Amino acid sequence: MNKNQKQTELIATWDTLQRIFIRPEDEASRETLLKYMEQILFGLHDFLNSHVGVTEEISLKELTRDFKDTQINKDPEKKLADVIIDIIEKIAPKAVNVASPYFVGHMTSALPFFMVHLKTIITALNQNVNKLETSKVLSVIEKQILAKIHRLVFNKEENFYQTHVQSTDTSLGAFTTGGTTANLTALWVARNKLFLPYQDFDGIENEGIAKTMQTFSLDRIVVLVQERAHFSLKKAGGILGIGNKNIIPVSVDSKHRIDLNDLKKTIKELSKDKKTKIAAVVGIAGTTETGMIDPLCEMAQICKENSIFFHVDAAWGGPVLLSEKYSHLLKGIEKADSITIDCHKQFYMPMTSGMIYFKDPLSMDQIAYHSNYVNRPGSVDIGIKTLEGSREANSLILDSSLKIMGSRGYALMIDHSIKTTKEFAKEIKSRKIFQLISDPELNIVTYRIAPIDLISKLNKASKNQKEHIENLINDINIKVQRKQREQGKSFVSRTRFKLSKHDEIESVVLRCVIMNPMTNIDILKEILDEQEDIFSRLAS
Amino acid sequence: MNKNQKQTELIATWDTLQRIFIRPEDEASRETLLKYMEQILFGLHDFLNSHVGVTEEISLKELTRDFKDTQINKDPEKKLADVIIDIIEKIAPKAVNVASPYFVGHMTSALPFFMVHLKTIITALNQNVNKLETSKVLSVIEKQILAKIHRLVFNKEENFYQTHVQSTDTSLGAFTTGGTTANLTALWVARNKLFLPYQDFDGIENEGIAKTMQTFSLDRIVVLVQERAHFSLKKAGGILGIGNKNIIPVSVDSKHRIDLNDLKKTIKELSKDKKTKIAAVVGIAGTTETGMIDPLCEMAQICKENSIFFHVDAAWGGPVLLSEKYSHLLKGIEKADSITIDCHKQFYMPMTSGMIYFKDPLSMDQIAYHSNYVNRPGSVDIGIKTLEGSREANSLILDSSLKIMGSRGYALMIDHSIKTTKEFAKEIKSRKIFQLISDPELNIVTYRIAPIDLISKLNKASKNQKEHIENLINDINIKVQRKQREQGKSFVSRTRFKLSKHDEIESVVLRCVIMNPMTNIDILKEILDEQEDIFSRLAS
Repeated sequence: MNKNQKQTELIATWDTLQRIFIRPEDEASRETLLKYMEQILFGLHDFLNSHVGVTEEISLKELTRDFKDTQINKDPEKKLADVIIDIIEKIAPKAVNVASPYFVGHMTSALPFFMVHLKTIITALNQNVNKLETSKVLSVIEKQILAKIHRLVFNKEENFYQTHVQSTDTSLGAFTTGGTTANLTALWVARNKLFLPYQDFDGIENEGIAKTMQTFSLDRIVVLVQERAHFSLKKAGGILGIGNKNIIPVSVDSKHRIDLNDLKKTIKELSKDKKTKIAAVVGIAGTTETGMIDPLCEMAQICKENSIFFHVDAAWGGPVLLSEKYSHLLKGIEKADSITIDCHKQFYMPMTSGMIYFKDPLSMDQIAYHSNYVNRPGSVDIGIKTLEGSREANSLILDSSLKIMGSRGYALMIDHSIKTTKEFAKEIKSRKIFQLISDPELNIVTYRIAPIDLISKLNKASKNQKEHIENLINDINIKVQRKQREQGKSFVSRTRFKLSKHDEIESVVLRCVIMNPMTNIDILKEILDEQEDIFSRLAS
Repeated sequence: MNKNQKQTELIATWDTLQRIFIRPEDEASRETLLKYMEQILFGLHDFLNSHVGVTEEISLKELTRDFKDTQINKDPEKKLADVIIDIIEKIAPKAVNVASPYFVGHMTSALPFFMVHLKTIITALNQNVNKLETSKVLSVIEKQILAKIHRLVFNKEENFYQTHVQSTDTSLGAFTTGGTTANLTALWVARNKLFLPYQDFDGIENEGIAKTMQTFSLDRIVVLVQERAHFSLKKAGGILGIGNKNIIPVSVDSKHRIDLNDLKKTIKELSKDKKTKIAAVVGIAGTTETGMIDPLCEMAQICKENSIFFHVDAAWGGPVLLSEKYSHLLKGIEKADSITIDCHKQFYMPMTSGMIYFKDPLSMDQIAYHSNYVNRPGSVDIGIKTLEGSREANSLILDSSLKIMGSRGYALMIDHSIKTTKEFAKEIKSRKIFQLISDPELNIVTYRIAPIDLISKLNKASKNQKEHIENLINDINIKVQRKQREQGKSFVSRTRFKLSKHDEIESVVLRCVIMNPMTNIDILKEILDEQEDIFSRLAS
């Protein structure tokens, strides 16, 4: 068969095109389709297994070389079978093996294998939970699982949940496309709750910020959050018209948690300024960089005293509530007004899925939008009160996963991650060349290579010399992290922040996120060995 | 095996839990996993095939009855196999069969079967294109397909694309999680472009709207769009702090397209008010309700003359550019500053995926955000300039699909949809009891049941009588649409709008979206027959 024949096979006529919309009825075609699925499930997997590292070593220039053609072909170029083979043989080796237990740099890991099956079901059903007319029972299941997680967090009485679980008037939360839009939704609601319709004023959502500021003789709206918060919060400030400068950073204490004194002081100062309104204070349960949890109880109390909306970004830490051993770390989260939890992080779901929850089932009324063709007032369409429009039924994945594993299954994974991280921190401390930066509270740890000679010089140095030495240390850490990434066997990430309040320059630190159940202390030791090795070769 | 044994099988120990993270190596387990996939691919399909209608007839009350338990089980309730069987036997019948050719009510249809395979690949790879470190070649492929679609729309010279396709400094667009966030991104950029950093002023994104209005002595920012635009645009106005009241509706002409005279008049009036700034004019290429295309050339010209940012919401109509026969309908789109196109609509991709494009590769600089641990300045991380954070690599699906079908494959489907819709409109016109409301330009048609006796009364009626009769007609249409939906064999949607500028009340109309290639004129005739039948039973 020549190339041309092959190309025209698939869509030469309307009839052949139509066939791709019907799954074949005869045995042979069914087997072919199944064979493709086998290639995807196992071919891809076998390949990744034989490439235990995270990615092939290749420069960006080289990587982009074959991806510069910008013409869309008129005729088909490839059949599905060839596309699959191409992806397995040519694309996958140049992707990142995030499932490798040596990939501990970001919040992406191996998934339980059944997640692939569940996602395939979602795709095959292709429901749109934006509206009941395109989802029906899937909207109902979404409301149920939202109530289950709401209960896990807020733990209200049975009667509360019976009232709201399937209520068409109220909302306990919503699925979002990730933590970023969940945080954005929370601050959107917080902003709107501050300026509700009143007499002639139609509310900030309708009137806009300019009119609102005029009406109430104000100059600005602000949000307070610790300086290491996820950048989606600053971005939300920009999007919402608050201005990202008005997402005001509160300093952190020596344990990388929000400094309560600074928080109180900042609130006090801002409250003196009659031209400023505080829309929200945000607490973090599992900071992106160090996995720390802000003192939520105390923050909730401060917010209560000052009548400020309290949002908790638990995108990372939320699922820790499933662990009997560690859920106490999140104490106070039940006092929040809203909570972000990501599904594609510690719920081990595929990209991309997040959730936002509100303690008050009427909170989301502040962001309701209607249209004439769907989402009519009084309808049960979930999309009335979500930032996103059309949405796939990812809620069924979480629902099914909790049924397959139970909360205990998740707890086992979380407990293992935290335990392994603590072992890892101990190992780091035991090696002379490393300096532990953040003693892990959950399963994220930061440390750096801090050669003894440089550290001893640092201790005796003048201010100018200090900066020079810190830069040398930073440089070493950047080089080692890069080299390790390029070698493609393992991957840790890096970030930079001030090691203490009094420091003038930011230090580069290495960052490990331990969430893959296959990552154990032996693997982590190997990763340290490799870093030591790279460093020694740098030095020589 | 008793129930308890079954439950504890899966995660009783850490070892069994770990196993779910490794795909099994032995033949027997592989076969089991594959069998599940077969059930999903074909079991689900066979079920839907034997239930040709769109959903089982069931009331919402009945539907929610079994979904009220809000406790998360500690132990596993079900194995994957049972979850799959449950979904096929109990969930699917209560979901909506959007793949049915009789489902013509919304912009969701059957998908080419290979889409399920492609989505499964995305899930198995689980890359996060937010950052290069978790996606590598997938980020590169995303940039390439963005350039391909940019070229389809804007058709700049080869040199332009060679410069930008893999540039780490510039962006031709971005994948979003849907049309809503694509439109939001466009207006976000438009708002920011209006108030760039200047001297002491740090730009609206940083400073916020309040400070911006003060600095420039302004009262408000507005956006102009035709009154039938998708409600995501109003919502974007609310989110962005512009105020959804300031998304100013421009009236439509008799063909449901923006009234150019009203647009010009509105711009002129607003321009006189020195306290108001117009951030953007939005044109629609495929309105949600009637599928009409605004006069894009003329709108582009008006925007040019008035130096206003021109956004085109082509969420629905964008892929029509692939049709040689109909692409001329979108003439003028290449003059837009930004364009929304949805992937899960006429690109026939699974939920949820959209795209936003900018003519100027520097436009997205206005929404750039950095962090210390990823998305550092100068990096090639795509997530620097997107509203969303973590994102799955849906771009690979579009890339593969265009390779499998070619632009011609898509064109065949689009041409068929439009042709069938025109036949359908002819059929509606030929039946006495129906009144065609919008003569279709693309593949959406609206009509209503307008019984001859009521229409003849309407023509002779006084103003008061008219309202009464219109309400009677509306009532009939609501009842017929509901009854047809409940019968579960076929589904058309309904909406309401004023039939002409001079009307005082909104009329309820029936709305069909013809995008499923299996939907043909015979099926559409059956749908009309059923409506006639329901109506005659209503009347008797």
